[in-house]
Amino acid sequence: MPLVSEGAFIASQHSPEGCRLVLLGAPLDATVSFRPGSRFAPAHIRQISESLEEYSPTLAADLGDIPFYDAGNINFAFGNVPAALATIHRVVKSQVLDRGCRPLLLGGEHLVTLPAVAAVKARYPELVVVQFDAHADLRSHYLGEEQSHATVMRRVCELVGAGNLYQFGIRSGTREEFIFGQENTHFFPYEVLMPLKQVLPQLVGRPVYVTVDIDVVDPAYAPGTGTPEPGGCSARELLLAIDMLANLNIVGFDLVEVCPPADHSDITAALAAKVVRQALLGMGRMAS
Amino acid sequence: MPLVSEGAFIASQHSPEGCRLVLLGAPLDATVSFRPGSRFAPAHIRQISESLEEYSPTLAADLGDIPFYDAGNINFAFGNVPAALATIHRVVKSQVLDRGCRPLLLGGEHLVTLPAVAAVKARYPELVVVQFDAHADLRSHYLGEEQSHATVMRRVCELVGAGNLYQFGIRSGTREEFIFGQENTHFFPYEVLMPLKQVLPQLVGRPVYVTVDIDVVDPAYAPGTGTPEPGGCSARELLLAIDMLANLNIVGFDLVEVCPPADHSDITAALAAKVVRQALLGMGRMAS
Amino acid sequence: MPLVSEGAFIASQHSPEGCRLVLLGAPLDATVSFRPGSRFAPAHIRQISESLEEYSPTLAADLGDIPFYDAGNINFAFGNVPAALATIHRVVKSQVLDRGCRPLLLGGEHLVTLPAVAAVKARYPELVVVQFDAHADLRSHYLGEEQSHATVMRRVCELVGAGNLYQFGIRSGTREEFIFGQENTHFFPYEVLMPLKQVLPQLVGRPVYVTVDIDVVDPAYAPGTGTPEPGGCSARELLLAIDMLANLNIVGFDLVEVCPPADHSDITAALAAKVVRQALLGMGRMAS
Amino acid sequence: MPLVSEGAFIASQHSPEGCRLVLLGAPLDATVSFRPGSRFAPAHIRQISESLEEYSPTLAADLGDIPFYDAGNINFAFGNVPAALATIHRVVKSQVLDRGCRPLLLGGEHLVTLPAVAAVKARYPELVVVQFDAHADLRSHYLGEEQSHATVMRRVCELVGAGNLYQFGIRSGTREEFIFGQENTHFFPYEVLMPLKQVLPQLVGRPVYVTVDIDVVDPAYAPGTGTPEPGGCSARELLLAIDMLANLNIVGFDLVEVCPPADHSDITAALAAKVVRQALLGMGRMAS
Amino acid sequence: MPLVSEGAFIASQHSPEGCRLVLLGAPLDATVSFRPGSRFAPAHIRQISESLEEYSPTLAADLGDIPFYDAGNINFAFGNVPAALATIHRVVKSQVLDRGCRPLLLGGEHLVTLPAVAAVKARYPELVVVQFDAHADLRSHYLGEEQSHATVMRRVCELVGAGNLYQFGIRSGTREEFIFGQENTHFFPYEVLMPLKQVLPQLVGRPVYVTVDIDVVDPAYAPGTGTPEPGGCSARELLLAIDMLANLNIVGFDLVEVCPPADHSDITAALAAKVVRQALLGMGRMAS
Amino acid sequence: MPLVSEGAFIASQHSPEGCRLVLLGAPLDATVSFRPGSRFAPAHIRQISESLEEYSPTLAADLGDIPFYDAGNINFAFGNVPAALATIHRVVKSQVLDRGCRPLLLGGEHLVTLPAVAAVKARYPELVVVQFDAHADLRSHYLGEEQSHATVMRRVCELVGAGNLYQFGIRSGTREEFIFGQENTHFFPYEVLMPLKQVLPQLVGRPVYVTVDIDVVDPAYAPGTGTPEPGGCSARELLLAIDMLANLNIVGFDLVEVCPPADHSDITAALAAKVVRQALLGMGRMAS
Repeated sequence: MPLVSEGAFIASQHSPEGCRLVLLGAPLDATVSFRPGSRFAPAHIRQISESLEEYSPTLAADLGDIPFYDAGNINFAFGNVPAALATIHRVVKSQVLDRGCRPLLLGGEHLVTLPAVAAVKARYPELVVVQFDAHADLRSHYLGEEQSHATVMRRVCELVGAGNLYQFGIRSGTREEFIFGQENTHFFPYEVLMPLKQVLPQLVGRPVYVTVDIDVVDPAYAPGTGTPEPGGCSARELLLAIDMLANLNIVGFDLVEVCPPADHSDITAALAAKVVRQALLGMGRMAS
Repeated sequence: MPLVSEGAFIASQHSPEGCRLVLLGAPLDATVSFRPGSRFAPAHIRQISESLEEYSPTLAADLGDIPFYDAGNINFAFGNVPAALATIHRVVKSQVLDRGCRPLLLGGEHLVTLPAVAAVKARYPELVVVQFDAHADLRSHYLGEEQSHATVMRRVCELVGAGNLYQFGIRSGTREEFIFGQENTHFFPYEVLMPLKQVLPQLVGRPVYVTVDIDVVDPAYAPGTGTPEPGGCSARELLLAIDMLANLNIVGFDLVEVCPPADHSDITAALAAKVVRQALLGMGRMAS
Repeated sequence: MPLVSEGAFIASQHSPEGCRLVLLGAPLDATVSFRPGSRFAPAHIRQISESLEEYSPTLAADLGDIPFYDAGNINFAFGNVPAALATIHRVVKSQVLDRGCRPLLLGGEHLVTLPAVAAVKARYPELVVVQFDAHADLRSHYLGEEQSHATVMRRVCELVGAGNLYQFGIRSGTREEFIFGQENTHFFPYEVLMPLKQVLPQLVGRPVYVTVDIDVVDPAYAPGTGTPEPGGCSARELLLAIDMLANLNIVGFDLVEVCPPADHSDITAALAAKVVRQALLGMGRMAS
Repeated sequence: MPLVSEGAFIASQHSPEGCRLVLLGAPLDATVSFRPGSRFAPAHIRQISESLEEYSPTLAADLGDIPFYDAGNINFAFGNVPAALATIHRVVKSQVLDRGCRPLLLGGEHLVTLPAVAAVKARYPELVVVQFDAHADLRSHYLGEEQSHATVMRRVCELVGAGNLYQFGIRSGTREEFIFGQENTHFFPYEVLMPLKQVLPQLVGRPVYVTVDIDVVDPAYAPGTGTPEPGGCSARELLLAIDMLANLNIVGFDLVEVCPPADHSDITAALAAKVVRQALLGMGRMAS
Repeated sequence: MPLVSEGAFIASQHSPEGCRLVLLGAPLDATVSFRPGSRFAPAHIRQISESLEEYSPTLAADLGDIPFYDAGNINFAFGNVPAALATIHRVVKSQVLDRGCRPLLLGGEHLVTLPAVAAVKARYPELVVVQFDAHADLRSHYLGEEQSHATVMRRVCELVGAGNLYQFGIRSGTREEFIFGQENTHFFPYEVLMPLKQVLPQLVGRPVYVTVDIDVVDPAYAPGTGTPEPGGCSARELLLAIDMLANLNIVGFDLVEVCPPADHSDITAALAAKVVRQALLGMGRMAS
Repeated sequence: MPLVSEGAFIASQHSPEGCRLVLLGAPLDATVSFRPGSRFAPAHIRQISESLEEYSPTLAADLGDIPFYDAGNINFAFGNVPAALATIHRVVKSQVLDRGCRPLLLGGEHLVTLPAVAAVKARYPELVVVQFDAHADLRSHYLGEEQSHATVMRRVCELVGAGNLYQFGIRSGTREEFIFGQENTHFFPYEVLMPLKQVLPQLVGRPVYVTVDIDVVDPAYAPGTGTPEPGGCSARELLLAIDMLANLNIVGFDLVEVCPPADHSDITAALAAKVVRQALLGMGRMAS
């Protein structure tokens, strides 16, 4: 134990050297229409990561064996969404991908997925996107805006092609979104584990970007989120799903929509930290 | 989108004209012995309803297609229970039933069910009552009082006949209440979905009043309630149960015992709002 | 007492007819860099206004005698600041000023003052602005942006002229802001009551816009704010200051930066509601 | 230090024998129209009393030298106000006054003062009542009810005579209440310490009942109260006022309207506990 | 109903006479590395026990028929762990076991299990220990210390023999702890009900000490705990497990790691209180 | 603005080189008998420091001009107080003093002052200690322990000599502590500013260690503390006092007893951060 600690995610290396995985906070918190506060998520998730063990019994792997670097939070001004998205894109590209590393982003709101996928797609043109979410996020526009937490996956569709988007656990959206999803994406409403098991073989060997909106689980398991949608799966199901991804070639990952001010008990951040630990362990196998 | 919004339940019409469903707050908060605060439930449920979509994928129906009117909260003084019950009865009768509409009440405590059922029963003499609840609420008296959150369903029994009361999910009560329930009402302890599926055919075609005490779900899913009783079903199960009722002739509905001050994350109000949305969609089919 | 209530600010008329004062929520919540949540302020302030008497002993006046109309909240999308500001400007102009009324805005963040002052200035070219605030908000730019909670009063300066801006209670800012304030505006750091008393005679007879950033009081009295700055005045001092303005010709008023999620006890909203009541009473004398 | 502790107020004796002061919880929580929760006050005040020293430097006295007994909470059903008031009256009379002791009540809401004063007045016909409060509580009726938190001091007036009621710190009420107070009671609005100092000599030697509504202080110092009224005095001023009473013959005391669920930090209960300690020390001199 | 109540666990006798079960608070709160606050658990669990019925329908038994005594909290200084453990040992031995009674402890942190098991083992040399827990707590040392919440079950192993320790629901630990558990104790990771059902016959007739770390359930069901570990079982599963133990000879029981400050809704304490009620009912059969 | 930020106190340098001031977290949280949680203070104070300006108008100085280094938190195990104190002593000595720097510690509980003063005293034998506190902390022993939050200043007395201890704002303690203080230390009960002004000339030129227990202010201004003691001074008074020290030779400083879990609004941490900023600015003049 060092005499002095510094507040990064548990088991982070002290310098980026030798790391193939880079964890970055992306505290964008601008377009959510209900509860703001996701800007505080990266700090909370890091802090509560100290309450976890570095070892995962389900993967029989230890974070201490996976060299990754927690690089801190991306800086941008509040109130200018296009500028913030451009900054996120620039940092993910220059600080992570151009150095041969893979990014793991801590949102912030779901819109951070858009510049991250764009940057990763530029490097991995065959990119597949796997989304766990309560909301389809497939609107064409939202309140007149093209870039919003409610349109983000529609924009991602346009980037990677709807046939390369897999959506699990969706239980909320407009009639139009549900029709669009059912007709265009790999759209699996309500359930997570069953359909994931089915499609997993299709994904093996392809570069995969995973985006986890924490509201995919029921609000009982993640009360600290901007738009709680009752009726979701359990934390255990989400953790099993993340573990199932460990055999894929995950080239990018994000965990979004944790809203710490809405969770007095911080169990949402605890779940997020455990998801991140499992994701790092899974990515670590392939990245090395 | 109008330039200015007003704070009613999502998709409420701006006037009662043409509406067959009327939503009313009934913030009675007087006889709960443990945690008070249900008086704030109607306002919270309305506010958080904004975070929901108007479309329900499970019913493939949109609240925008169901003309209903959110009439605000019933006014009464705190501290005089009989006067408050009389006021609720008068408003439900004169403002809703006498105009050919059906009421959906937002409690307040469970005792609001009594005057509402009385008013609805006067119009629909064949009334059946369906209760989702952790507590039997079948005491004859409670701390010397006849009218209390703990006796309300006993009083309802006396109004509609014990054979017309269906109780689901009950997991708390005195020995006497359990004996009374097992001998007199359609009494289904612990479980919700299974027994509901069984009895549903008996209810088709009859006028049904549904009362949902939010504590029927486990406190994990509804921490904001006056008397949390561990060991209940999940939010998903309750939502499935409400959807199953959509083919019945629901002539009255209430959702009670949401206690917002006890839920920092407002997930209880979010669940309540979704239950109300599904109930409005279900009632809308029949009421039109 | 009506049978049914509706959730507006206490004593609001039920229609705008005959009202010379219009209260409007402006839940902009976009550029605050620390704690978001001011979008929820209008609803909280209205709700807690029910805990106040309509009568003010310090002004010996009753809100029931002042016809004003609470018109609800201005609608806009989150994430597009210029569009939101344009909407606020349009509503204040068309729904309030063009009808011969005076606006009282409930923020939202401090940036809402900018479109409101612009609209009012167009009608009252001699406009003076009085600001109560912990922060100077006089930056030229903030994180690259021109329109921000941290630059709003600099923009207001440009609109009305620095000589027409009176700033009270300022205790935070950059060195540049303090120099700018001391050289250009009527700049009164730290104190509120003393300097206000001094300059009051200069303001009599002129059209005055008052903007109250709730963080002018110490965080003890207003913990629910986005950027708490310790060392401010007491609630009693702020209330006395508002009462002192009752003899001025207040043609516009706003109360901003109440952040309800950061105040579990809602004492910030209670103070805000009392400030609004006193402001309505003061404006009512002149507006009639 | 005993091996096992029991949860009473600090320094309480383990049996009533030899005690001349009896502390009783009176968790009535029925007529408050805004925030309920005062039923939890006695338990919270007792728990946080452990954080205080038994010694008071301002009175140079130690609670360990004052034999008093914390008898627990009075039991009654919620929802029946007249029955609850009758029970409080009966317990104060039979368990305290008839045994030659003096009561110190922990509310609950302010209405508990009525039966307590009635019982004490029966024993001390010359009784004077001293009230510290933000609200006059002098309404004749409130929402149709005679017995309410808003009418309690009017009822007390009728019991002891308006000339025997001293009211300090009042800053809220209807126009009628302010007129009634100014014409009938010893009515000191806004201020506490100054007027108390003035009238103290009139009270020496008379039997005095003191009722402290915690909302007399500013909500900053007591956020956990049912009807927070901004603009009050500080905790220090209230404590000084209580200390000034130590030379009077206090034959009854109550502390009401602490609402723990509304104060996440429990500083309201901490202030209440310190007020109670000082009151016990002051009463102990005379009672022995 | 007595006129005055005292704040013990529901249905506690007023004196220890005739009781074979003694409930004791053990608010040790010293070695938890993440969130402290378990010292407040005994008081919260007692308070919320009032919201439960004394009757359990699943056991068809009533707490009113089980004479047990709630003896209050064990006193010790904070900051000296060895002294606190010695005090707990002394009280459990002298106040409970030496009087022919069986202890039920409310923690406090998990380390309180160590002195309790030591005392019980001295009386019942054949003792078996059953642990429900998210964490193995099997470290040899933790941060240099031998006695810690993270080592407690290793120390218990040393006391009773690893072959006499049954561990259910474990889902967190170091690689070394998992190996130790799998090689030495009866180690059942992740699951609770299934393995318990299997091993139950082995335990019949033997003296059993049960230790329930509330974090065995998912944080959704028990957010108020020191080290929330996502992915656990439901409250219903834990309650079923406790009921399954009712046929065993339980000679000691503890419920630990409830951390009330981390649970604004107190559902963790409510679950704990229900577990304790069921445990008392189960122990009552054998102890009488 | 750097692309990526790291979570240190605002304006901290990125390496210790060239810094004469070192900020260190000392999250000891072991001996407080009432509310634990001060272990989270350093992280909260750092996070909320972002909401402050780097410029102080009262000192007309900017933190950007003072090279200081935030070195993170000192690591130690919970549950072993002597080991933790030894670690703090070692780090303050080796990492700060031996490098010619001056320490500024963020507690943690008040006991951290003891090893820090010991280390500083070894370097500055003429050391004077200035304490701002609600509690005397002068007990000889507390619950049998010598080293406790309640005895820490008695131990400091023994280290530096009672004549070198100045205590301001004390309003709680045992009779013995008050007598000891009045007879031995420079003891100023209740007041802060007045007596500080008086004694300031005596301190000029001497090496001074300042310890600020945040509970010296009233709980209204610092609700997030372990042992809230009503009746203290305001935040403004404390800030003025800290500014008055800017002309002294401060060779060590600590800020203790901030307990973030007890302050939902984080105004305690905001006050602490502002105190730290002012202290750094004051120390920076002399240290350079």
